[in-house]
Amino acid sequence: MKSSGPTTSSAPPDASGTVALRLAAPVLLPCDPVCSVIRDGVVDVDADGRIAWVGRESDPGAPAPPAQVRRLDGVLLPGLVNAHCHTPMIVLRGLGGDLPLMRWLTEVMWPAEARLTGEDVRAGMLLGCLELLSAGVTTSVEMYFYADEVSEAVLEAGSRVVLTPGIISAPGWDRLGTWQQMLDGVSARIDSVGLLSGPGDRIELGYGPHAAYTLPTEALTATAAAARERGALLHIHLSETLGEDAALREVHGSVPRLLESLGVFGGRVLAAHAVHLDDEDVAILARHGAAVAHCPGSNAKLAAGIAPVAALRGAGVPVALGTDGPASSDDLDLLRQARLAGQLARLTSLDAAALTAAELLLLATRHGAAAIGRSDIGALEPGRWADLVHLRLDDPAFVGSADDASLLSNLVWAGGGRLVRDVWVAGDQVLSDGRSTRVDRAEALAGARAVAARLRT
Amino acid sequence: MKSSGPTTSSAPPDASGTVALRLAAPVLLPCDPVCSVIRDGVVDVDADGRIAWVGRESDPGAPAPPAQVRRLDGVLLPGLVNAHCHTPMIVLRGLGGDLPLMRWLTEVMWPAEARLTGEDVRAGMLLGCLELLSAGVTTSVEMYFYADEVSEAVLEAGSRVVLTPGIISAPGWDRLGTWQQMLDGVSARIDSVGLLSGPGDRIELGYGPHAAYTLPTEALTATAAAARERGALLHIHLSETLGEDAALREVHGSVPRLLESLGVFGGRVLAAHAVHLDDEDVAILARHGAAVAHCPGSNAKLAAGIAPVAALRGAGVPVALGTDGPASSDDLDLLRQARLAGQLARLTSLDAAALTAAELLLLATRHGAAAIGRSDIGALEPGRWADLVHLRLDDPAFVGSADDASLLSNLVWAGGGRLVRDVWVAGDQVLSDGRSTRVDRAEALAGARAVAARLRT
Repeated sequence: MKSSGPTTSSAPPDASGTVALRLAAPVLLPCDPVCSVIRDGVVDVDADGRIAWVGRESDPGAPAPPAQVRRLDGVLLPGLVNAHCHTPMIVLRGLGGDLPLMRWLTEVMWPAEARLTGEDVRAGMLLGCLELLSAGVTTSVEMYFYADEVSEAVLEAGSRVVLTPGIISAPGWDRLGTWQQMLDGVSARIDSVGLLSGPGDRIELGYGPHAAYTLPTEALTATAAAARERGALLHIHLSETLGEDAALREVHGSVPRLLESLGVFGGRVLAAHAVHLDDEDVAILARHGAAVAHCPGSNAKLAAGIAPVAALRGAGVPVALGTDGPASSDDLDLLRQARLAGQLARLTSLDAAALTAAELLLLATRHGAAAIGRSDIGALEPGRWADLVHLRLDDPAFVGSADDASLLSNLVWAGGGRLVRDVWVAGDQVLSDGRSTRVDRAEALAGARAVAARLRT
Repeated sequence: MKSSGPTTSSAPPDASGTVALRLAAPVLLPCDPVCSVIRDGVVDVDADGRIAWVGRESDPGAPAPPAQVRRLDGVLLPGLVNAHCHTPMIVLRGLGGDLPLMRWLTEVMWPAEARLTGEDVRAGMLLGCLELLSAGVTTSVEMYFYADEVSEAVLEAGSRVVLTPGIISAPGWDRLGTWQQMLDGVSARIDSVGLLSGPGDRIELGYGPHAAYTLPTEALTATAAAARERGALLHIHLSETLGEDAALREVHGSVPRLLESLGVFGGRVLAAHAVHLDDEDVAILARHGAAVAHCPGSNAKLAAGIAPVAALRGAGVPVALGTDGPASSDDLDLLRQARLAGQLARLTSLDAAALTAAELLLLATRHGAAAIGRSDIGALEPGRWADLVHLRLDDPAFVGSADDASLLSNLVWAGGGRLVRDVWVAGDQVLSDGRSTRVDRAEALAGARAVAARLRT
């Protein structure tokens, strides 16, 4: 990515930073570039919620333990990064499950979404945050509407979001204003609260132009200029299905070619899906440092196709994983997406070594964070936010995990989000033994259920 | 299938059969041919462990409730059928996770398996049964060795098995005898205890000739004759990868052609994998009533390919779902396999309506049972065994499930085995709130861990 991520709002710790908490675990996965496995490791967290030290407890260079040491019995790894989602759509989950993308969007989703109020979106986002955290996802990149309500739900649940409010010009959506009003709204929001806000920098703002086929070209150009000017992420659906942009393709060759000609690239660009790309499209993304959010589950269920992940990675395009919205994918278990990414990579290459377990884990953590331009999350390293996930190890999934290769394989191929017990975001424990420490799950479920039921009448 | 399944060992209930238990649930999925959704339904179970009545509690024709009525708050459905597995390999899970089939088999699995004792297999099978039950799988079709120990573990856990002991002639395997001795051993076992045995007919015996490429042709012919004579299932790996049977294919055109020429078909035949089939191969399976165990997860991870499920079903071949052994697939969550089967069906057809949620659920239940020749499990119908699974409904997966289509979609696409709470097999509750009622999970885990650790030294 040409531009780096947002400047952090609080300074990284210096040598004198106070360590508030040490977490010790029999298995630590720091998600460093080689995906090390640390046995009997510790993570020290400072009073600001950032990681102060990571290593083996027995390391002679380990700092003296702080007053508070918590001994865990499972696997400790960084919080997962879901790079493409529309979480509030949880209230629409299950509707139109057997339709292709354009019919599903125009006949089922958009009419239903037209009935959503801000309070409905808040209810969906709140329950969705609990589901994300329960699957070990601490950060999600969200393209949705009602930014106030989405942000409030994130802060209530204690998770982390890159919120790129939707900008769209399509039938029915003018109830929320013109694309220009939507764009100006996002810019005004960023100019008012900054790119990063909230405790532990929990909210990052960016721009969510929906897609080239739902916006006039001048909207794409203007949005890109506004995003670049502010160093903000531009998050857009790109080349998801063959049908959606057939008209654009006929005129411009492809959507990446069109976007390049419009000057959309050059800043921080995250292209969701990126299924139907030719070699030149891949080269365009690579030369502009654009990243891709690979959403294999959604692309499979909607029969869109399989993104050329090997070609993208080979060309140097940063690739992250996304679940897409729960109305299409349908759950928010990112490790399940990692597994599917591995399965599809092997099927398309007929190479059983394509995307190893270690590579898949890094896609869900370190590489995912890098793809969205964030070097302050996605790995257990001093200075990064202490976004941590603790998975149970006393499960048949991990029965043979004495060697590191088996442990990583078992985590990705046999384990998954169902094993998550505890989650911390910026050092705050937000999930404890599977339960939110902040939100009454039954109330959140009831709130979202009421919305879902109303949308079905 | 030309031959019907095994004759049941206990008579189906007559009108005077005593109803021992009624289970009532807000959602009942009987897995009838149209995949009905019954709201506020009940299942009556007789004293033998068979289903006596199924329907709406408010139905005027409903029998009077028995003394014991248990009110559940989730979804009640039939126990799932895993049509191809090698469950004891759970102790090998994670080994060689990035190798193609033949290297994985010959370099990693077979040498490790050569070190397994009967007690090791029992330990693996016991933990595996707990994992299967925890994912809602009540019946698994197992190809493995040490039949005594596998059976004992199944009876201890209380699950149900179709046990087809392996028959193989490949390097290293002669430690267990010649193929003829293995074959004779299975025949003697069936002749001694019968096709069905154990409480609730929990054990069905069949034959497990490993594959055409690991057995001489006379072994295939002899095994098929023995199986046909006894009405037993013949369970064989078929056309899994392009490489495994290249030599056979060169001579015989394909393995199905070879098996047909050897007279292997005609009885109850279950072909696992069946990935690389041409039209004539599909026609051969169809005209002999052979069934296929589709194992999409294993085929993906090992880069084998995608079975032509649509062509098989179109030709009338019964298709079931299998996880394959936990060393290749890697978990035993059959609903996850169902989801993957749907994803791959949609990707290969580019049709977002290929394999609906209802069809996928039936593959894991009713159709799976039919494919292995069993009409006494796989659905909630009077006379079938009361193999039942209770899934939690108070989960974000089901947030919008007031309409039946959403409910089925949510079960398959967002739910899955992680939601299983209670399981009954032949009317006995074997899992209660996620815990085995019969086996100490920590002990089973420790036993399998010890084996797994030894195999890694």
